[in-house]
Amino acid sequence: MTTYLASRRASGEAMDPSFASAVDALSDFVLGGGKRIRPTYAWWGWRAAGGDPDGDLAEEVLTAVSSLELIQACALIHDDLMDASSVRRGKPTVHIAFGSRHREQGWLGSSERFGMSAAVLIGDVALAWADDMLFAAGLPSEVLRRMSEPWRDMRTEMLAGQYLDVLTQARGDSSPDAALRIDRLKTAAYTVERPLHMGAAMAGGSPELIDGLRAFGADIGVAFQLRDDLLGVFGDPEVTGKPAGDDLSEGKRTLLVALGMQFGADVLDTALGKPDLDLATVEQVRRALVDVGAVDAVEERIEELTKSALAALDDAPVAEPAATKLADLAISSTKRTF
Amino acid sequence: MTTYLASRRASGEAMDPSFASAVDALSDFVLGGGKRIRPTYAWWGWRAAGGDPDGDLAEEVLTAVSSLELIQACALIHDDLMDASSVRRGKPTVHIAFGSRHREQGWLGSSERFGMSAAVLIGDVALAWADDMLFAAGLPSEVLRRMSEPWRDMRTEMLAGQYLDVLTQARGDSSPDAALRIDRLKTAAYTVERPLHMGAAMAGGSPELIDGLRAFGADIGVAFQLRDDLLGVFGDPEVTGKPAGDDLSEGKRTLLVALGMQFGADVLDTALGKPDLDLATVEQVRRALVDVGAVDAVEERIEELTKSALAALDDAPVAEPAATKLADLAISSTKRTF
Repeated sequence: MTTYLASRRASGEAMDPSFASAVDALSDFVLGGGKRIRPTYAWWGWRAAGGDPDGDLAEEVLTAVSSLELIQACALIHDDLMDASSVRRGKPTVHIAFGSRHREQGWLGSSERFGMSAAVLIGDVALAWADDMLFAAGLPSEVLRRMSEPWRDMRTEMLAGQYLDVLTQARGDSSPDAALRIDRLKTAAYTVERPLHMGAAMAGGSPELIDGLRAFGADIGVAFQLRDDLLGVFGDPEVTGKPAGDDLSEGKRTLLVALGMQFGADVLDTALGKPDLDLATVEQVRRALVDVGAVDAVEERIEELTKSALAALDDAPVAEPAATKLADLAISSTKRTF
Repeated sequence: MTTYLASRRASGEAMDPSFASAVDALSDFVLGGGKRIRPTYAWWGWRAAGGDPDGDLAEEVLTAVSSLELIQACALIHDDLMDASSVRRGKPTVHIAFGSRHREQGWLGSSERFGMSAAVLIGDVALAWADDMLFAAGLPSEVLRRMSEPWRDMRTEMLAGQYLDVLTQARGDSSPDAALRIDRLKTAAYTVERPLHMGAAMAGGSPELIDGLRAFGADIGVAFQLRDDLLGVFGDPEVTGKPAGDDLSEGKRTLLVALGMQFGADVLDTALGKPDLDLATVEQVRRALVDVGAVDAVEERIEELTKSALAALDDAPVAEPAATKLADLAISSTKRTF
C-alpha cells in the first residue's frame, strides 16, 4: 500500500503539484491506522479456499485485498463528512483538517465549504484508486473475473448501507429492525461477508464453501457492529480514538439505542443528537442502558450471532489453518474491550 | 445504459427497497440529458484505430464507452454540490432535490445536510458503477488490460482537476495560467484526450496514432472548455440549462474572466461570486468583457487550438471515416452557439 500510494503520488504530482497535498492526506489516512479488518477477512477467505501463502499468487492477492482499505478510506472520509464528525482515530477528520488549513491560510470563501469539497474529492480519489489497485495487482484475468461479483456487490452494499443509514436517521426511524437492516448492509455484507466471498472466489472456492463463509460473515459482521455500537457508548476514548459518547451526540440509531428507547431509557431522548454532550449525561445514558437491559440484550445477541457464525464455519469445507484463524477472528472482533 | 441501470436498480432494491430512490435519481440524471461527448470521443478513438462497427466487439465497446457517462455523473453531482449550484440542465441539482424532499417530508435534522449526504453517496455510486459497467461490458481481458492506463489516468485527472479548481478559487488565483491548468486537466485530459486514448487503446492502436489523437484531444479539449466558458456568460439559458450569468455568480475563474480582469474589466470585481446576480449586471459584465478584448482573445485562442488540433489529427494515421468525423466533432464542439 505504501509503495502503491507513493507511485500514485508521483504521477499525481506530475498532473499538478498541488494535487500532491490531497494525495498526502489520503496516504496519512490510509497508512495512519485502522484495524485492516477487511483485507484480513479477504486474505483468510482466500486461504480458506486453499490459497497458498507460499505460492506464486500470494503477493498479488495481498495487493488485491489491500485495495479494500482504499474503499474503506472513501467510506470513512465521506461518512465523517455526512455525520459532521470532527475526530477520527484521535485526529481531525479530513473535512475538518482541510477547513482548518483554509482558515489558517486566510483563503477566500467559506472554510467549511472548502473542507467539504476536499473531503468529497479525496474520498472519490480513494474509491477510484481502489479499483485501479485491484486491477493492477497482477492477478490473472480469470481470477479477476471470478471475484468481480463480490467486488461489485460489496461496493454497492457499502453505499446502499450508508444511504439507508442517512435516510433512517432523517425519518427518525428508531426501531431495532431499522438498525439491524443497516448493520446487515453497512457492516456485515461490506466488512466481513463480501471480503470473505472475494477472497474465496479468488482461489476458486466451491459454491458450498462460499455459502458457508458468507453465512459465517453475515453473522459475525452484525456481531462486530453491535460490539462497535457498545464501544461507541461505553468505550475508552483512548482506545476508540473518538470522544466519549460520540455516537450519542451524532444521534446514531444503533440497535443498542433502539432497544434502549424501546425499553424506556428516556434519558436517550434528551441526549441523542445533542452536540458537546457533557460526561455526566453520557454517564447517565450508560447507566440507563444498563438498567433497562438494553446492554444485556445486545450482549446476548452478539453471543447468539457468534455461535451461529461458528456453527456455519464448522459446517463449511474450510481448509486449515483458515478455519482456526477465522474462528479466532470471530471471537476477537466481537469480544469486549471495555 | 438504460438496461444496465435497470438491472442495478433491481439488485439495489433487493439490498434495500429505499435504496431504489437513490438509483432512480442517478438514472434520471444519467438518462435525462447531456451531450454524451466522452463516449462519442471514445467510440471514434476506437474507430480511428480500426475498430469495426459491424464486428464482433462493437456492442461491448459501446457498453464500455457508455460507462464514461457514469464517471461524468459523479463529476457533475459532486461538482454541483461543491459549487452550491442549484440548477443543472434546467432541473434542480441532486443535493437541492434531496434537500427539498427532506423538507417536504418534514424529516428530522437539517435538509441541507441530507441533500449533501444524498449527493455525496449518489455520486459515489456512479463512480463505483462506472468501473463495474466497464468490467462487465464483456470485453476480452487483453482489451481491458490495454485500456487500463487511460482509464486509470482519466479518473484521477478528473478528480485532480476538480481539486485544483477548488484550490485555485480558494487561493483567489485569477491568473490566466491557473485557468488554463485547470482546463487542461479537468476538461482536456478527462473529456477528450483520455476518451480518445481509451478508445484507440481498446482497438490496439499504435503509439504513433495514440500520440496523435492525444495531441488533438488536448487542444480540442481546452478549446471546448473555452467555448463553454463563453457560453457560461453569454449563453442562452434555454440552451445551456443554466441561469444567465451562473458562472459569474459562482465566481468561476475561467480564462475569459482571468483575461477580463487582466485587461481591466473592473465590473468583474463586483459581480464575481455574487449570488442572485441581476440581469443588468450580467449585461454590464458581458459588455465589459467584449470592450476590453477578453472575448476576442478567447475566441482567438479557440481558433488557434482548433487549428493545431486539426493539424495533429492530419498528421496521425487515423482510419476513415474517423478522421472526418473527429474533424467534424472538433468544429462542432468548439463553435459558437450564441
